[in-house]
Amino acid sequence: MSENLQKLKDRMRQLSRLGEVAAIVSWDQNTYMPSGAANARAEQASTLSAFTHELFTSDPTGDLLAKSEADTVGMNEDSDERRMLSNLRRDFDKATKLPADLVADLAHHSSIAQEIWISARKENSFASFAPALEKMFDLTRRQAECLGYKDHIYDALIDLYEPGARQAEVATMFADMKPSLVALNHAISESKNPVDDSILHRSFPVATQREFTLKAAAQFGYDLNHGRQDEAPHPFCTSFSRDDVRITTRFDPNFFSMAFYGTLHETGHALYEQGVPAEFEQTPIGGATSLGIHESQSRMWENMVGRSRSYAQFIFPQLQTAYPEAYRGSTSEAYYRAVNKVSPSLIRVEADEVTYNLHILLRFELECELLTEKLAIKDLPEAWNSRMEEYLGITPDSDANGCLQDVHWSCGLVGYFPTYSIGNLVSGQLWNSIKKVHSDIDAQFAKGEFANLLSWLRQNVHSKGSKYLPKELVEMATGEKLTSKYYMDYLQAKYKDIYSL
Amino acid sequence: MSENLQKLKDRMRQLSRLGEVAAIVSWDQNTYMPSGAANARAEQASTLSAFTHELFTSDPTGDLLAKSEADTVGMNEDSDERRMLSNLRRDFDKATKLPADLVADLAHHSSIAQEIWISARKENSFASFAPALEKMFDLTRRQAECLGYKDHIYDALIDLYEPGARQAEVATMFADMKPSLVALNHAISESKNPVDDSILHRSFPVATQREFTLKAAAQFGYDLNHGRQDEAPHPFCTSFSRDDVRITTRFDPNFFSMAFYGTLHETGHALYEQGVPAEFEQTPIGGATSLGIHESQSRMWENMVGRSRSYAQFIFPQLQTAYPEAYRGSTSEAYYRAVNKVSPSLIRVEADEVTYNLHILLRFELECELLTEKLAIKDLPEAWNSRMEEYLGITPDSDANGCLQDVHWSCGLVGYFPTYSIGNLVSGQLWNSIKKVHSDIDAQFAKGEFANLLSWLRQNVHSKGSKYLPKELVEMATGEKLTSKYYMDYLQAKYKDIYSL
Repeated sequence: MSENLQKLKDRMRQLSRLGEVAAIVSWDQNTYMPSGAANARAEQASTLSAFTHELFTSDPTGDLLAKSEADTVGMNEDSDERRMLSNLRRDFDKATKLPADLVADLAHHSSIAQEIWISARKENSFASFAPALEKMFDLTRRQAECLGYKDHIYDALIDLYEPGARQAEVATMFADMKPSLVALNHAISESKNPVDDSILHRSFPVATQREFTLKAAAQFGYDLNHGRQDEAPHPFCTSFSRDDVRITTRFDPNFFSMAFYGTLHETGHALYEQGVPAEFEQTPIGGATSLGIHESQSRMWENMVGRSRSYAQFIFPQLQTAYPEAYRGSTSEAYYRAVNKVSPSLIRVEADEVTYNLHILLRFELECELLTEKLAIKDLPEAWNSRMEEYLGITPDSDANGCLQDVHWSCGLVGYFPTYSIGNLVSGQLWNSIKKVHSDIDAQFAKGEFANLLSWLRQNVHSKGSKYLPKELVEMATGEKLTSKYYMDYLQAKYKDIYSL
Repeated sequence: MSENLQKLKDRMRQLSRLGEVAAIVSWDQNTYMPSGAANARAEQASTLSAFTHELFTSDPTGDLLAKSEADTVGMNEDSDERRMLSNLRRDFDKATKLPADLVADLAHHSSIAQEIWISARKENSFASFAPALEKMFDLTRRQAECLGYKDHIYDALIDLYEPGARQAEVATMFADMKPSLVALNHAISESKNPVDDSILHRSFPVATQREFTLKAAAQFGYDLNHGRQDEAPHPFCTSFSRDDVRITTRFDPNFFSMAFYGTLHETGHALYEQGVPAEFEQTPIGGATSLGIHESQSRMWENMVGRSRSYAQFIFPQLQTAYPEAYRGSTSEAYYRAVNKVSPSLIRVEADEVTYNLHILLRFELECELLTEKLAIKDLPEAWNSRMEEYLGITPDSDANGCLQDVHWSCGLVGYFPTYSIGNLVSGQLWNSIKKVHSDIDAQFAKGEFANLLSWLRQNVHSKGSKYLPKELVEMATGEKLTSKYYMDYLQAKYKDIYSL
């Protein structure tokens, strides 16, 4: 390895470690930090972030990068070295294209706008949020212009979360799915075999929830010697290197499913982070390759495993032991049906598998239109509500349950929402490939065996770190470009069975 | 304020924030970090520490400091500005004497050696800890040589924790106290009125301990909106700014006093950190002035309040309500006597007030000898055990209960132990001054009123931040130089009464 490359790798390792420190600080903020510490914490986090950014974008990084690129010309472009350099080039160029004042404005307005959003949602007052949102879209537009794009301004933004993804592709993906999703949702609503989910809404003392969720995570293969679960108002998974990958959940004493499927979801994220190879760690090919691929892992463990009939057969007897009162007289089949009830609802984070992507479609369309000023900020609530009616057949009773429900836009996360749907599609396509190799995978779940699934994911997804673009990774793992076909097939088969369609 | 000084203060603020981040990372390591993350955490901590050290010792700091000193020549030397600059000069000179690689080695090895110590103590295996301890003393010796000293290598180290203190002074202090302590201990052992502490060793379910300790901390005035309590194997208090001051404790289901007096002790530390004035924060006169002054606060709240007869009258009825079985038929006087039982014991943190300083004396002597290589690491267990026999009349049954009991040396804290005894002496001297102003302070404790004590400490100690050296602070608060007289008077009066001597 060239001396320049070695020096560059040392520098990247230090920067990664500082990024991990930032993640620890953020984890604490979301779990244990006392409420009075918010201002101090904001300054701690922003000081660390500013120093790290300065170090990353400073001349020595650029010099070592350019020299290392020159030193490695002619090497196989798929070698770890060249992939490291091309990832770093992409990130370095992105970071250096943004003027310092814009970075500061974005950070500052993001924290202001989030505060305004919190009050606006509480008071159900879109009007009081509109000016802050207007300004955030202005800043985001400036950010996109600085980053640059070929076809659509949205491309510059989605690339931050899903490298290589493009607006046109996402639009096509939704166009493909939309009619089938609307039709399936409609058919389910007229089904003669509706689902009763009342057994999910009983009394579930929290201490047992805590234990049970952790046990389930460990059963999937989550390594608790290098991880742990805590409580947070908005559950998340965070990684401070593969040696310390933590998940969080939240508990409702009358609805265990919130904590349980939340934990299974975050466990999917955690298994990905724990599976990144040690030798990629603290390099530009370490970590996860995109939010979409991350979401494919969480959705697979939550839904394809956790909400499968075979897993219900495995877990329901354990649930009955943990909560004999709540589940007395019920069956694993009734439980399976209950946790897969489809019901159009106002809130994205509570949506079922069938309607979830319609929530995302709506946000994608609206953020594209806001960004290109086809839609004015002031007209957002009306546009939101009419599209909710059109796609899901329901109209929000308030903006708080409508266009004010998500934090994303208030903190400048435009181009982020589609990664949720990309994740679903990828999970479907990977699932199809897994079933070709392990035709009895469902039978394995019924016995509490998850090692073959985890091993396939380790080999085909986790072990690749972020060496490949998400598109490349999907094609390598499944032999095909990403398509919505497999996810739609999965939904159709599962829900036609449940609802006797 | 000069432009240079303003720039310097901005820089100090950023560096303070990075130091607070390091404290968050260390808190997590001691409370929630999964065991498998030790190596990653060591590198995270050392990277942050090296980076912060580099920024602190870089030319811009030195330039701004020199220019600010020049700009403020002629100002009152006791002004906040001149005190900031002189503290910063002291710390800057110390820091620039240490090479970056040594700073990184110390941080890294500290983290590693702590993990090794945890296992070694668990397995009672001094042999498995010895190499890490050897290396730590090597690093510490290098550190002391870099820092420089006039009379004794130890002076360079103790000055890190107790600015202005010297090895010879500490040796004199112990020489003054030792005969009276040994004599008092001996007289107590022959008392005709011995103490029965059996009510302290009963069954105390931990959930109640958790609640009760936190309530007691809040009663003293600990602000839980800016603090919290967690569990740690070796209890500590840490501050991430006055807005976030955390304590930890540990629980023994058969001995509530461990958690309870541990919490009262850490609360004393926390009250100090929460009482530093906001305008001093993130400047070189913010925070606490020394560990000795810190310990004076913790020992005062733990012992002069927590183990007083009047506090027993206040807290015992509450204890009876919390643990009716354990305390049935007992009295607050019996409880008062029990928690003040003097009995030479193996573990420092469980030692009574009379024998405590003999534990410190032993550590002080041993670390001086290890540092100067009069004592070899391999001979530490034997030296420890024989001195325990000589000073306290007992011999450890295991190294876990002997030289492996304290975390300090594993993380390079050599020169730290004497601050505990300095703290005791200061607490005695402050206490004497407080009683002159508030002669009825004991009667106040009996009613659960602690505001006058806290207010006196806020005014005379906490509000000074680290503007003054510990020696200066003691003299300002009490009108006298530090002496062991008041602490010894306090001990004699209290224990002659309890033991009818």
